[in-house]
Amino acid sequence: DKITGEVNKTDVWSVFSPLAGHVPKDSLNLGQGFMNWKPPQFVLDAHTEVLQRVETNHYQLPRGNIRLRKALSKYLSPSFKLGRELDSNTEVQVTAGANEGMYAFAAAFLRPGDEVIVFEPYFDQYQGIISFNGGKPVYVPIRAPEGASTGNVQASEWKVDLDEFKAAITPKTKMVFINTPHNPIGKVYQEDELRAIGKICEEHDLLICADEVYDCLTFEGKEHVRIAALDDFWKRTVTVGSAGKTFASTGWRVGWTVGPPNLIQPLLAAHTRIVFSCNGPAQEAIAMGVEQALENGFFADQIKAYEERKQVLLEGLDKLGLPYTIPEGAYFVLVNTSRLEIPSDFETPDLIKGRARDWVVAWFVAQTAKVVLIPPTDFYSKEHWSLGENWIRVAFCKDTDTLRQASERLLALK
Amino acid sequence: DKITGEVNKTDVWSVFSPLAGHVPKDSLNLGQGFMNWKPPQFVLDAHTEVLQRVETNHYQLPRGNIRLRKALSKYLSPSFKLGRELDSNTEVQVTAGANEGMYAFAAAFLRPGDEVIVFEPYFDQYQGIISFNGGKPVYVPIRAPEGASTGNVQASEWKVDLDEFKAAITPKTKMVFINTPHNPIGKVYQEDELRAIGKICEEHDLLICADEVYDCLTFEGKEHVRIAALDDFWKRTVTVGSAGKTFASTGWRVGWTVGPPNLIQPLLAAHTRIVFSCNGPAQEAIAMGVEQALENGFFADQIKAYEERKQVLLEGLDKLGLPYTIPEGAYFVLVNTSRLEIPSDFETPDLIKGRARDWVVAWFVAQTAKVVLIPPTDFYSKEHWSLGENWIRVAFCKDTDTLRQASERLLALK
Ligand SMILES: CSCCC(=O)C(=O)O
Ligand SMILES: CSCCC(=O)C(=O)O
Repeated sequence: DKITGEVNKTDVWSVFSPLAGHVPKDSLNLGQGFMNWKPPQFVLDAHTEVLQRVETNHYQLPRGNIRLRKALSKYLSPSFKLGRELDSNTEVQVTAGANEGMYAFAAAFLRPGDEVIVFEPYFDQYQGIISFNGGKPVYVPIRAPEGASTGNVQASEWKVDLDEFKAAITPKTKMVFINTPHNPIGKVYQEDELRAIGKICEEHDLLICADEVYDCLTFEGKEHVRIAALDDFWKRTVTVGSAGKTFASTGWRVGWTVGPPNLIQPLLAAHTRIVFSCNGPAQEAIAMGVEQALENGFFADQIKAYEERKQVLLEGLDKLGLPYTIPEGAYFVLVNTSRLEIPSDFETPDLIKGRARDWVVAWFVAQTAKVVLIPPTDFYSKEHWSLGENWIRVAFCKDTDTLRQASERLLALK
Repeated sequence: DKITGEVNKTDVWSVFSPLAGHVPKDSLNLGQGFMNWKPPQFVLDAHTEVLQRVETNHYQLPRGNIRLRKALSKYLSPSFKLGRELDSNTEVQVTAGANEGMYAFAAAFLRPGDEVIVFEPYFDQYQGIISFNGGKPVYVPIRAPEGASTGNVQASEWKVDLDEFKAAITPKTKMVFINTPHNPIGKVYQEDELRAIGKICEEHDLLICADEVYDCLTFEGKEHVRIAALDDFWKRTVTVGSAGKTFASTGWRVGWTVGPPNLIQPLLAAHTRIVFSCNGPAQEAIAMGVEQALENGFFADQIKAYEERKQVLLEGLDKLGLPYTIPEGAYFVLVNTSRLEIPSDFETPDLIKGRARDWVVAWFVAQTAKVVLIPPTDFYSKEHWSLGENWIRVAFCKDTDTLRQASERLLALK
């Protein structure tokens, strides 16, 4: 896609996000993962205030605003379990969204021809992040448990087959992307799985890009475990986080990367060349937001609110009667559509042609129920479309009213 | 620098920007190019207002906020002289600062081993932007006129030697970076020079990255000419602009690229993989800012204010008695330091070792006059340090009081 630039004409976001509010009018959007509410008032107030300062409106340090790095160190240190605070100067780096953090990591370490293991389904941006930096993604499926297409299963039952993982490693393998809590499965990797994956990375001296942008959202007391916090994996891992997910500010483009200085320093060099520095007022506001959230119970309250949203959606899906995977983290549910019948005379537009069944299903749902969902085969390599084509992703980062209405509309599919 | 990540330990910004306010305390900073005032009140008001909207705080389109692209089309179309409006959907692309626009252009079009012509002195980021994308910068000097080190000259007298330019082109040459108004020279390229450069690019089928981030700042009625507006050069040129420079908001990271769809589409593909989208509230605020600035005379008023700042600084330099190059655009003045004597026992710290004379001079000025300036050899390839080592860059994007005080302090050098 580097040469033709085709990626943006037909990727899943460009096709499905505009659907809401367009074709048909007044659709409900449970597609792309963003909230239909504002960032919390205390964060907005902080942002409004800092706009009145001179320096906040000008270039920040390429490493990121000092106050933000300090606040992040305070917030994140316990879960990295280093027995000490993260060094906010050398181990915490602010990036222009988590996405740019991953891009900078790839830009810093990948050389033409390097292979990167990606567990699929995967957040579709990984593919471009890797290939624009000269790397070659090598896909290893996260296998759904038996029965996942006929009844509900827990997200944790989806597993990486370690033998498949090992078989995919070659002398050219340089890096592994791992995502927990997982988009779109909702899987929160357990300690033993992470340890097994980490050990294999260690044996082959692979770097780890740990995409943990949903780290603040795990359900029913499930603990988010960082691979960087286990054994000796810290020294080969860059962990990526997101203010967008943490503070309902996906449009602010503030993210962070955490890792040992020998990984963060080259990442910083890349980041500096890519964007030089990140938005100043947003960084300062997020710094103040983290400080306050550590005091005011925001993180726990937010989980509670998401538990309720998830519950509303799952109850709706129960009425619909299609099997789904119960998420343990993040804000998506995979619903199995094998049993959903698409009328044989259902017509799809050209941009659906050549796509897997899930795109037809998503189009059908948008037309029939006026609910926009995301077909997940863009999260699979083409060879493995069959693993994704009978699923559809439903986002629950929407208020409960919207989720209730959407659930009712989905009954039109019965 | 890709492998070692050294770039950020010792680049000119990392060394000199922290000097102000540190060593010695209470220095005046005429170094890095940012303003010591806030964005205009009407832009700040717009920003404050849009923070209260839901969608503005969430993912924007990768192409950029629609209102901003429309406002930019209105603002920029006349100077591109296409005889029609720019198409805000396919010819205008918002980027995370001008820097990321250039990075995305390089990421989209450079292949390993491609050569890129850079006229030096050059904005130091180009080097990393090119090399991180597998390209190799090839430097062609912009030659100072005779007498530039003994008396004042106009910036337009600094010239690219077209024979040197042609001699630098090889079959591997893919792209040319051209910067007008020029940082740090203050040169505004004239139509005939641009035409000659463009014709050579045409003959060799080279792409042009036109860094025109200072397009809103030309002095004494001098017209900013866009290379993309001449002859047929539009079709091989991406022009880069900056809200940071235009609205004193260097920390907001809003920039834009303008070009034909066949260049912008691949750039968009790269941009999407790099940052996905740009800061939403800042984009909306800049959109409203452009709309209002087109009505309220802001652009002309701003030039007038900069003319005064420039005048204050130049008068100060006249008193100091060192020759300088009179800028026609942007907000920097190159001052020749050949006649400045550095005491033989002046001691510099380790991080100045191995640098050219200008770094010693900048260090000396900071200690002696408590004014931070930028030594320009980081804007030259190492082979051409000799062209830069007797110059120092002074920024005048500072209020007139600061400029007056700084001018007085500089008299300590006499
Ligand atoms: C590039 S889409 C961003 C939102 C997201 O992460 C998702 O919906 O999967
Ligand atoms: C990366 S520094 C940005 C400021 C600037 O353009 C300059 O001072 O030259």
